[in-house]
Amino acid sequence: MSQTWKKTYNDTPLVYPASTEEVSKVLKICHAKRIPITGYSGGTSLEGHYTPTHGGISVNFSRMDKVLAVHHQDLDVVVQPAVQWQKLNEDLAKDNLFFPPDPGPGAMIGGMVGTGCSGTNAYRYGTMRDWVLNLTVVLADGTIIKTRRRPRKSSAGYNLTQLFIGSEGTLGLVTEATLKLATLPESTSVAVCSFGTVRQAADCVASIVGRGLQLAAIELLDDNQMEYLNHFVGESGVKRNEAPTLFLKFGGTPDAVKEQVKIVEKLASKAGSLSFDFAGDKKQEADLWSSRRDALWATMSVMKEGDKVLTSDVAVPISRLPDAIEQAKAHMMALGLVGSIVGHAGDGNFHTIVVYSDEQRAQAEDFLHTMVDRALEMEGTCTGEHGVGLGKRDAVVKELGEDTVAAMRRLAFDPLCLLNCDKIFKSQKGDI
Amino acid sequence: MSQTWKKTYNDTPLVYPASTEEVSKVLKICHAKRIPITGYSGGTSLEGHYTPTHGGISVNFSRMDKVLAVHHQDLDVVVQPAVQWQKLNEDLAKDNLFFPPDPGPGAMIGGMVGTGCSGTNAYRYGTMRDWVLNLTVVLADGTIIKTRRRPRKSSAGYNLTQLFIGSEGTLGLVTEATLKLATLPESTSVAVCSFGTVRQAADCVASIVGRGLQLAAIELLDDNQMEYLNHFVGESGVKRNEAPTLFLKFGGTPDAVKEQVKIVEKLASKAGSLSFDFAGDKKQEADLWSSRRDALWATMSVMKEGDKVLTSDVAVPISRLPDAIEQAKAHMMALGLVGSIVGHAGDGNFHTIVVYSDEQRAQAEDFLHTMVDRALEMEGTCTGEHGVGLGKRDAVVKELGEDTVAAMRRLAFDPLCLLNCDKIFKSQKGDI
Repeated sequence: MSQTWKKTYNDTPLVYPASTEEVSKVLKICHAKRIPITGYSGGTSLEGHYTPTHGGISVNFSRMDKVLAVHHQDLDVVVQPAVQWQKLNEDLAKDNLFFPPDPGPGAMIGGMVGTGCSGTNAYRYGTMRDWVLNLTVVLADGTIIKTRRRPRKSSAGYNLTQLFIGSEGTLGLVTEATLKLATLPESTSVAVCSFGTVRQAADCVASIVGRGLQLAAIELLDDNQMEYLNHFVGESGVKRNEAPTLFLKFGGTPDAVKEQVKIVEKLASKAGSLSFDFAGDKKQEADLWSSRRDALWATMSVMKEGDKVLTSDVAVPISRLPDAIEQAKAHMMALGLVGSIVGHAGDGNFHTIVVYSDEQRAQAEDFLHTMVDRALEMEGTCTGEHGVGLGKRDAVVKELGEDTVAAMRRLAFDPLCLLNCDKIFKSQKGDI
Repeated sequence: MSQTWKKTYNDTPLVYPASTEEVSKVLKICHAKRIPITGYSGGTSLEGHYTPTHGGISVNFSRMDKVLAVHHQDLDVVVQPAVQWQKLNEDLAKDNLFFPPDPGPGAMIGGMVGTGCSGTNAYRYGTMRDWVLNLTVVLADGTIIKTRRRPRKSSAGYNLTQLFIGSEGTLGLVTEATLKLATLPESTSVAVCSFGTVRQAADCVASIVGRGLQLAAIELLDDNQMEYLNHFVGESGVKRNEAPTLFLKFGGTPDAVKEQVKIVEKLASKAGSLSFDFAGDKKQEADLWSSRRDALWATMSVMKEGDKVLTSDVAVPISRLPDAIEQAKAHMMALGLVGSIVGHAGDGNFHTIVVYSDEQRAQAEDFLHTMVDRALEMEGTCTGEHGVGLGKRDAVVKELGEDTVAAMRRLAFDPLCLLNCDKIFKSQKGDI
């Protein structure tokens, strides 16, 4: 068997189906011949999801990139898996509609379903799990199923839709999805607000969440991240306080936005804000938000040759967020690691972006494992939005226990373990 | 075996466990002895969910009725299955919090998870599926699992939480749930608005939904229902137009509510509204909304001796709602059936409440089957919120196809079919 165990995507034979029926044909052949299958759409995931660890073939969805139907009045859209969310939103904007989940640039619907992704919009709009009405899926033996129909609500049997979302290509290949859409808010605004300490910023977030204010996004960047951003924009760019900073996005009717901004400015001041910059027009709004978008690139800009980057993705109950962030910062400093913190603070989810050299690799990995352990002590999760893939399989067992992972194993849609086998959990005990 | 096949709840031995561990012990014994099990909490479901069609025992959760923890800052609460949603909300109100799903009075968390219920709040807040963070579940063999931890977001493996929601007691017994909470809106209001035709009312709903206005609830009552309500309140009560009527609930910050009411009044007028009554104070607000709450009892008040009542629960994409309601009304009239229509119009979900005599039974059942067929033709569902139980098993096969139902059957958490066997789908082909 060793010749079929190819560990990289580049070595793998690619298949380019153009329809659900073609995917079904491919999977029937693979099922009969026992050929492992890994799906591939945008290729932006961070946890090795599309690495074909069992060899076999990769089903590349690039030919299935069509928007099949837009139902304006029903606020839904039917798409193929290789539709990119940004492109979709460009098209929908002319009808005043959008699809809220906003993961990394380049991500496509197939992979977004696979990882159950989210992004900065999750505080207001929820995650991928909240925006899928139904899925057409090809099972391991080639059977085509559609998980449900198109009404907004249904109690018709088991929630197969949610079973496939976040299943990382292990239960079936998604060939079509009906996605819910939201209307673009009539009015939007952005504010950027800095604090003396991360705890003050996190306290401000807690007071916004506790007040039930439905901001469009609440993002937290630490002082290191702000420093890297100032470095990244260079001499010509706008410099910001190198202090823990909240990026706040508002959306709604014009009066509601004005009212929210006022309330939030007061809450920020009460929590000890040092500054509260508020976008006066669309251009300023875009400029302010672009700093948030640049965070990863800014941190990567301080990398030296040969350095690598690791990202964590823990989420904790919101009350524990200040502790979790403070401990992560202190630990990172104690280890002498270069890195920053970017958080979807409204969800209790944050990323540490750690830059490390080859000599620091063990330290960086140890740091990430400790982050997960601390999150679990706080009743949190090892992954808020990136998924499990290969890297967090042991963490999931720690998080949920052997019996819960065993229950996942019992969802035996793929008893031959042909579909992205050994992702999320190991199909057998031991080191795979 | 015939002596163990008891068909009614009254004949069934009841077991009253007081903890997750006791439920586990009971299920271990039942597993070893092959004794069928049906769970029971509030007993308000409409589709025969707690009818022990295979005999065995009923696990009555009435002793597990505690709120175990309220995490104010995290906006979540940990509860046992026999907590009643109304009682929970009474307790939470003092902290300015609430749990949004609002099914029939008396429903309890266990059954609400089982059916994946919703209610009038679903347009704004979503259904039960959107408000559960994690579940502790005892599987058929007595294994205790917890589906996830307590952060707001997690991508840690398969979504077992969503698998159990709506599984109608067939995959495991829920013994504990962590529920998300919302903050009570600072300001609320209610408006009642009548129209010349059901289509005008439905068009108004479509324009509210299409505008992306986040009203707290959008309910539609037909002219028959309004007539029964006038009859129900008697001489002393406030009479309303016996015309298709929208009941609208608003919630948010004070300015946002005022703004929304203004916008909606304009949209209603554009759609042809005959009246737009707006609550001036809390008392009027409660009075206006109480008519919506009385709908079922009002329709039942026109029952003659021996009459029975049947309720349908279809949901369709919102663009098809006017057609679906008009066709249902015309069909009901053509058959000479007495009945009314009450809709969670913002979700495209509506109920027909049909009153029938013994002689009309076949007609009433035929009417409900036709309703389902028409909903399916419109890409809708046979059940928006009540679940499948016994009555809609054939409809689910029509709706989703044999292969999708077969996929549900493969979720083999209970291979012996001891847990509420033959609900949702028949465990074997044929008439069970």
